[in-house]
Amino acid sequence: MSKENAGNFFEDFQPGQVLRHATPRTLTAGDQALYTALYGSRFALQSSDVFARQLGLAQAPLDDLLVFHVVFGKTVPDVSLNAVANLGYAAGHFGAPVYPGDTLSAESEVIGVKQNSNGKTGVVYVRTRGVNQDGALVADYIRWVMVRKKDPASAAPEPQVPDLPDAASADRQAIPQGLDFSAFDFAAAGSPHRWDDYRIGEKVDHGDAMTIEEAEHQLATRLYQNTARVHFNQHAEGQGRFGRRIVYGGHVISLVRALSFNGLGTAVKLLAINGGTHAAPSFAGDTIYAWSEVLDKSEVAGRPDLAVLRLRTVAAKDHACGGFPYKDAEGRYHPAVVLDLDYSVLLPRA
Amino acid sequence: MSKENAGNFFEDFQPGQVLRHATPRTLTAGDQALYTALYGSRFALQSSDVFARQLGLAQAPLDDLLVFHVVFGKTVPDVSLNAVANLGYAAGHFGAPVYPGDTLSAESEVIGVKQNSNGKTGVVYVRTRGVNQDGALVADYIRWVMVRKKDPASAAPEPQVPDLPDAASADRQAIPQGLDFSAFDFAAAGSPHRWDDYRIGEKVDHGDAMTIEEAEHQLATRLYQNTARVHFNQHAEGQGRFGRRIVYGGHVISLVRALSFNGLGTAVKLLAINGGTHAAPSFAGDTIYAWSEVLDKSEVAGRPDLAVLRLRTVAAKDHACGGFPYKDAEGRYHPAVVLDLDYSVLLPRA
Amino acid sequence: MSKENAGNFFEDFQPGQVLRHATPRTLTAGDQALYTALYGSRFALQSSDVFARQLGLAQAPLDDLLVFHVVFGKTVPDVSLNAVANLGYAAGHFGAPVYPGDTLSAESEVIGVKQNSNGKTGVVYVRTRGVNQDGALVADYIRWVMVRKKDPASAAPEPQVPDLPDAASADRQAIPQGLDFSAFDFAAAGSPHRWDDYRIGEKVDHGDAMTIEEAEHQLATRLYQNTARVHFNQHAEGQGRFGRRIVYGGHVISLVRALSFNGLGTAVKLLAINGGTHAAPSFAGDTIYAWSEVLDKSEVAGRPDLAVLRLRTVAAKDHACGGFPYKDAEGRYHPAVVLDLDYSVLLPRA
Repeated sequence: MSKENAGNFFEDFQPGQVLRHATPRTLTAGDQALYTALYGSRFALQSSDVFARQLGLAQAPLDDLLVFHVVFGKTVPDVSLNAVANLGYAAGHFGAPVYPGDTLSAESEVIGVKQNSNGKTGVVYVRTRGVNQDGALVADYIRWVMVRKKDPASAAPEPQVPDLPDAASADRQAIPQGLDFSAFDFAAAGSPHRWDDYRIGEKVDHGDAMTIEEAEHQLATRLYQNTARVHFNQHAEGQGRFGRRIVYGGHVISLVRALSFNGLGTAVKLLAINGGTHAAPSFAGDTIYAWSEVLDKSEVAGRPDLAVLRLRTVAAKDHACGGFPYKDAEGRYHPAVVLDLDYSVLLPRA
Repeated sequence: MSKENAGNFFEDFQPGQVLRHATPRTLTAGDQALYTALYGSRFALQSSDVFARQLGLAQAPLDDLLVFHVVFGKTVPDVSLNAVANLGYAAGHFGAPVYPGDTLSAESEVIGVKQNSNGKTGVVYVRTRGVNQDGALVADYIRWVMVRKKDPASAAPEPQVPDLPDAASADRQAIPQGLDFSAFDFAAAGSPHRWDDYRIGEKVDHGDAMTIEEAEHQLATRLYQNTARVHFNQHAEGQGRFGRRIVYGGHVISLVRALSFNGLGTAVKLLAINGGTHAAPSFAGDTIYAWSEVLDKSEVAGRPDLAVLRLRTVAAKDHACGGFPYKDAEGRYHPAVVLDLDYSVLLPRA
Repeated sequence: MSKENAGNFFEDFQPGQVLRHATPRTLTAGDQALYTALYGSRFALQSSDVFARQLGLAQAPLDDLLVFHVVFGKTVPDVSLNAVANLGYAAGHFGAPVYPGDTLSAESEVIGVKQNSNGKTGVVYVRTRGVNQDGALVADYIRWVMVRKKDPASAAPEPQVPDLPDAASADRQAIPQGLDFSAFDFAAAGSPHRWDDYRIGEKVDHGDAMTIEEAEHQLATRLYQNTARVHFNQHAEGQGRFGRRIVYGGHVISLVRALSFNGLGTAVKLLAINGGTHAAPSFAGDTIYAWSEVLDKSEVAGRPDLAVLRLRTVAAKDHACGGFPYKDAEGRYHPAVVLDLDYSVLLPRA
């Protein structure tokens, strides 16, 4: 029996199947320090124990996207080792805050399969749940990927495609227990802007930009224990489609979240990732700019201290975002756009 | 109202004004590990809890320059976002040691303004204070920067230029409480040299050298949450003065401090930064060498265990320092020199 | 007296001499996070406190090779600053697990010297011991290096060459106290393979590969406080033998250990490094692949829960390892081979 993990092929996935992923991971202050060094994030809630305590938490929680990437990384050996493309995300939510010392593990349920008409690949839909050492949910999301068939001649399964909500449902927007923005310190946060100051349709150019280096995206992706080969092997990728290593899409998500501080500094807590599209791959040497649009606003019953913004943040490479590049009349992305992310954040109202 | 932070322009600064900077930061063992990985520092006091306890501290404090850079980083969005040049430092002191878990914040007082004769820019002088969660001073310094005017036609303010001490005054050299070098372990420190072994005017070639990589200075500068654009945006800088990203000057300071271990291994504690000049910008690919000269020696009243060396450390790029490159007869820096740093360190006498 | 450390030359070493190395180092969760980011290691014992507790330890220990590299780094200023070549390792063992907060220090005994026939260099053999703050052994090993003579005219010492065991002796394979694999969680570990599933002579292609970046090996080597010049100074190395900085050999060892997860995921604990040869230098840009062969299997008396595999892991650069590249009929390494490592690991049997 070969000892090497060959990964799962399209035929290996059946709806209802539960994949328990390997490599539980204890996250520490060391991981958060690396996360800060990789993205330069300045959101005060994750940066300062003092600020976090003023908002009712025991200490600064780890960055929400660090948690997301660590959960995601665990799924790669089982879900996407033989993936041709990562097609999308939906219905992502953040649960219990994660603190240094917490140990995360993950499992995924297969919620849909659909063979492609070419007979060589199929789309697999999974719902992944990340939990801490007490079994509390820390993040979950639906993801769909195109996976190779092992044997093109094998019979196509009955197609089953799940309903994909286009935004995380409001009832799932669980505010972490104890979190209270009444004493929100806007000077410490670095922005005076309340939830009430933003209007639906408002666009913000985040102005700042970051150029990606090979060492940076490799360090990040390994930190998440995501060892998908396309990110690391120049010898093989040099012969591939792009001639280069492909940057893990989540690295770009974290970059634009950090860039969005400039204009959204009070959006200190992610609640949900409603959907996301990697419009084009990113590579070392690309300079990532970002802009955001307020898609929706919603109050939280009984909470005068905080409320929710639904945002679209768009990343563009080698293209400043003062003109808000997005889609053309036919719905095709502007050629500079690499990421189109729909997500929800908590802001103070006080 | 635009949500993006446009930074302050020359007209926005008035003497006496206090700027409370954003983004309090809890520093951890993770930050120190990154600092070690970025510079390879080997000073025993910051490297070992055991060594630190032998000298009377509770545990190894974080590196002094890590503290300096974190404090400095907080000032960038308010002080130097529209800076044309970072002109100098003076009167920098280190206060209470910073330990993992401490949370730093910073504020600056404007202590001088002077419009330049071209009418387009002016010099702003600020005194910045970094404090921990208990309000204890951890580092302070004076810095002056050249800042763009928003409106060249606006009236020039009354010029006010502070007296800049050329060395940190002796009375400010606060030895951290409890620090006692009586039991200094020279073998563990990696150098046999006491304060008494150094003479004024003595020069040391540090011999070692480090080549800077883009990923390294970007990781460092983001770790300090210093997001000044010139360090990160190749797309824009490629069109700029140098065609390249500029390395944060503090990155070079930390590099040469680490290189200075070879010859100054017992200089385990920084007391003061008396002044500093970035003689030329540094870029990825530059190899940094360093040498030091003993400018002065001073005893500390009632302390037979330790004393102070005032040092000049000079960094040169792509140029070995056996010949101690510095200034020519007209006072112009040798073309290889990138940094001229005047600072004070504590050494054991026992 | 020059303050710069000139290192030891061949004449400075005498059998029986003990070198107490400088720079004690407190290792933390920050160091482990960096180690994970540098190599992407996924062995569950070092990744998860929960998994480590299931196996009887107090928490996840730091990676064995992180400990090895930190101990090794301390020896460089005393042993190999004037080394021409690092010739080999033997008889390496791991002792007490190292946890965040432990402080490591190291000393070496000179156990052999032999001048080379050219009269300009000689081989020095040392046995290095790394201990924690309680004096407990954490790692020891024999290493031999070729060192320059200061004065080619100086007399040759009496040659003394130690017996070099070709594998760590079984009695030295100390299982960490309390470690018990009875409750080994194979799903969490990411591999179903027990010790019993491997047979002597079996070969595993690890499939994955990693391309080395300059920033990565520099960060790693500085993290270990190994400041040997050839790894860091492009200005000087650009004029040298290879025209490039040389990657610290230990960086390649850690890379292939991480790559070996794919096929050896249950080999969660290193016991010994029996021997190692860096067959060729590695440089930034090299893509490292690896394969392993089971050299031997041994049970541990009274332990039905675990047993030992002795492995050879071979690293090749820019060459996939499906064909298991190694040596030709004359015993010369395949030109792609950069590392030939002989070591022992613990696996579960349950």
